[in-house]
Amino acid sequence: MNIKSPKASLTIMTNSVLPGETNILNNLFGGELLARMDRAASISASRHSKQIVVTSSVNHVSFDRAITLGSTVTIQAKVSRVFNSSMEVYIDVWVDNPEGQQIKANEAIYTFVAVDINGKPIPIDKIKPESEEEQKRYDGALRRRQLSLVLAGKMNAKDATELMALFS
Amino acid sequence: MNIKSPKASLTIMTNSVLPGETNILNNLFGGELLARMDRAASISASRHSKQIVVTSSVNHVSFDRAITLGSTVTIQAKVSRVFNSSMEVYIDVWVDNPEGQQIKANEAIYTFVAVDINGKPIPIDKIKPESEEEQKRYDGALRRRQLSLVLAGKMNAKDATELMALFS
Amino acid sequence: MNIKSPKASLTIMTNSVLPGETNILNNLFGGELLARMDRAASISASRHSKQIVVTSSVNHVSFDRAITLGSTVTIQAKVSRVFNSSMEVYIDVWVDNPEGQQIKANEAIYTFVAVDINGKPIPIDKIKPESEEEQKRYDGALRRRQLSLVLAGKMNAKDATELMALFS
Amino acid sequence: MNIKSPKASLTIMTNSVLPGETNILNNLFGGELLARMDRAASISASRHSKQIVVTSSVNHVSFDRAITLGSTVTIQAKVSRVFNSSMEVYIDVWVDNPEGQQIKANEAIYTFVAVDINGKPIPIDKIKPESEEEQKRYDGALRRRQLSLVLAGKMNAKDATELMALFS
Amino acid sequence: MNIKSPKASLTIMTNSVLPGETNILNNLFGGELLARMDRAASISASRHSKQIVVTSSVNHVSFDRAITLGSTVTIQAKVSRVFNSSMEVYIDVWVDNPEGQQIKANEAIYTFVAVDINGKPIPIDKIKPESEEEQKRYDGALRRRQLSLVLAGKMNAKDATELMALFS
Amino acid sequence: MNIKSPKASLTIMTNSVLPGETNILNNLFGGELLARMDRAASISASRHSKQIVVTSSVNHVSFDRAITLGSTVTIQAKVSRVFNSSMEVYIDVWVDNPEGQQIKANEAIYTFVAVDINGKPIPIDKIKPESEEEQKRYDGALRRRQLSLVLAGKMNAKDATELMALFS
Repeated sequence: MNIKSPKASLTIMTNSVLPGETNILNNLFGGELLARMDRAASISASRHSKQIVVTSSVNHVSFDRAITLGSTVTIQAKVSRVFNSSMEVYIDVWVDNPEGQQIKANEAIYTFVAVDINGKPIPIDKIKPESEEEQKRYDGALRRRQLSLVLAGKMNAKDATELMALFS
Repeated sequence: MNIKSPKASLTIMTNSVLPGETNILNNLFGGELLARMDRAASISASRHSKQIVVTSSVNHVSFDRAITLGSTVTIQAKVSRVFNSSMEVYIDVWVDNPEGQQIKANEAIYTFVAVDINGKPIPIDKIKPESEEEQKRYDGALRRRQLSLVLAGKMNAKDATELMALFS
Repeated sequence: MNIKSPKASLTIMTNSVLPGETNILNNLFGGELLARMDRAASISASRHSKQIVVTSSVNHVSFDRAITLGSTVTIQAKVSRVFNSSMEVYIDVWVDNPEGQQIKANEAIYTFVAVDINGKPIPIDKIKPESEEEQKRYDGALRRRQLSLVLAGKMNAKDATELMALFS
Repeated sequence: MNIKSPKASLTIMTNSVLPGETNILNNLFGGELLARMDRAASISASRHSKQIVVTSSVNHVSFDRAITLGSTVTIQAKVSRVFNSSMEVYIDVWVDNPEGQQIKANEAIYTFVAVDINGKPIPIDKIKPESEEEQKRYDGALRRRQLSLVLAGKMNAKDATELMALFS
Repeated sequence: MNIKSPKASLTIMTNSVLPGETNILNNLFGGELLARMDRAASISASRHSKQIVVTSSVNHVSFDRAITLGSTVTIQAKVSRVFNSSMEVYIDVWVDNPEGQQIKANEAIYTFVAVDINGKPIPIDKIKPESEEEQKRYDGALRRRQLSLVLAGKMNAKDATELMALFS
Repeated sequence: MNIKSPKASLTIMTNSVLPGETNILNNLFGGELLARMDRAASISASRHSKQIVVTSSVNHVSFDRAITLGSTVTIQAKVSRVFNSSMEVYIDVWVDNPEGQQIKANEAIYTFVAVDINGKPIPIDKIKPESEEEQKRYDGALRRRQLSLVLAGKMNAKDATELMALFS
């Protein structure tokens, strides 16, 4: 097992918003954005793990900014932390404004599991954050995992030390 | 403003899993399921509100059971609670097994906001749960909303009374 | 061989009408509706037969009511009668009106054949109508089959007793 | 009003059968073929009428021959007869065999109505059959129209002179 | 090996321009037209060769005339010359004008290679031009091939006799 | 008018190859790659020009390396030179190999024109190459433009000084 850099998994997917992907207000459907983010994030997870990967969960996602018909949307996905067979992938969504700057439109966090050809989970390389942002996301990943486990009834809230710190 | 029944918003979307929607293990892409659920849930939200609706957020979603190529997938969406302009929609995903029974494959929770033609939020009818399950989901919706607000830094954890009860 | 209820095959497919599926008048293409009905009806036929099914024929279909962009369309398909390896599936199409009621937009009748993995027809369970409407459609199915056979030159018109009653 | 030749409306649509359009037996979905035929036939109807056209009905269609993945499918559509605002379009479907010959796979008959921008029917040019086959289809169109009207309860069976001749 | 006629490979693909295929000016995307031409031309190449074919190159293509939403587009593809395993396919694109005439919108030239199931090139039948236009395109094919080879650095410019005649 | 850097127009589009996009050898269709490159390149051209852009021509494209089902494909597009209203965009296509390295699979060159809302060409900012590769592509753009003009009969071969140098 090696230790890799998050940026080795960086995946950039730029595309336009077409008429068939927009609602009556001419804005990109939330579901279409969820699907695009899943594609970018799964490529990122497989770039890190060099294995087949399957989506395991989607963290809470907010759609704070409408994305209009004709927009240029850039999705950036990067593995933020590894837990045995699973990887958290952090996704940033940017939209070009008329001046040509990329404005942050969204963030999302998906989790993927690396599996063999029979769908059985297999261990993968760890990751070591390098930038300040990568470190912050790496640390947050542990709290998010604890929250997932508590909400799924698979962990006792009082054992979720890092998570509980948020609520004290 | 009227008070409506959740079942008035019930939306059922049955469809098959086609080759273009599956990964190398011949299972439905997570992102494709996220998009289908968004379409079913947004119809449910607009059936309740009789307004244009836009996806506002997606709650944590787990993909616990792989859905194979050729499967018949039934998505059921129903509004679970209303908060001013926003609606929580609860989604159940079922897959036909070989004996013809529908097996639960997934649950997800999306939030939608009702808007006017300019995208401005508008108030909508409230909902009154009728079945035991509807009541349970209605109660849970308040805790999920508090969790959302706390995680987004828009609510102080100690004011999230119903949520904190989970962690004590 | 068992005898089953039509409602065991009930398949509901609700979906919206998107821009890429409409003509210059902003109405759903007839061909797109034909394809959606085929998908819903084939799921219904396979729910009844628990076999692979292939479309065998489409009965006369009229498009009496235009379905506009953004509409919510609900397709309901149910097996109406079984003949050895073939099943007639009756399809009702509904559109939500602005008041949220479902208005009948269309009816269609497709026939499917159950086949094994080599495409060879195999016998399937019979069906027993329960409601009044199911009985009426069950009776009509025999006349429609006779009409098909006569038009295809596979049955002599004077042997099509039930059909000829219509013309006397 | 002019009188035109059927061949002025001839529309040829050749295309391949792709993986996303086939069922578990690797054959083209019936619904996909219905949609392709609708597209070809509507182009034929608008080539004849020089107007916006909408699908009005689909005559009985049989799927006699499975069309496999990778096949080359040629759809030929030609207006067979005009009734005021409506046109019957006759569709022939051919599949290339391994020797490169085109083998007949299907026939279908669709009816279209020419409309103005508000969807109101408008009169169109008549058609005059030229070949023997065109004449035969032109004659049959009248019987098919009578059968439609009788089945829809808009014509008394005993007034459907040409149709009744089939059953005597 | 036989010698065949170009018209044995003639492939006609007529279709409409739909909303999801147009840009903000309501004109067909160049990329969509490139993809449609590839499909038509590959059918033409496989009709000639009776083999699996893969796109090998695209000659220079100009988009001289915008094709608007709702247009009827007719693509005609025909093999223009054969070189061992490769075929040049000449593509003409026509658009119906309001008077119902087909106006030339584009020309393009693609090259395909015939391969066996392992992707290895295999020799194919030659072609013999019949019409004057076929002869002209047959002759041009040799110059285009020389230009390709020179630009790819696989042929010395001074050996490209037919090509150099253009520049003298 | 400003002078901009090529890298301001850099557009990266990473995506997977899905079943519906592959031929019988399980390789990406040439036409699908042409369409993806057009989308990436048009975003690059509009990032440079801040205007509506339309595809004007495609330079010679070779498909030297088959791209298999499931591959991760990265398309990079960057404006290489500006001529009044038109821009040449240089496209590099990379495929991830099993070791996770990106291997060059293809190059292509498209030309776009910046237009106003009526489709009329408008002048755009110039570009100044910075890297050695950008300089080489900038220089080549002039020869390619001369070749285009000569082949289209809009320039006399002997005036195409830079081009002719290739053949001497």
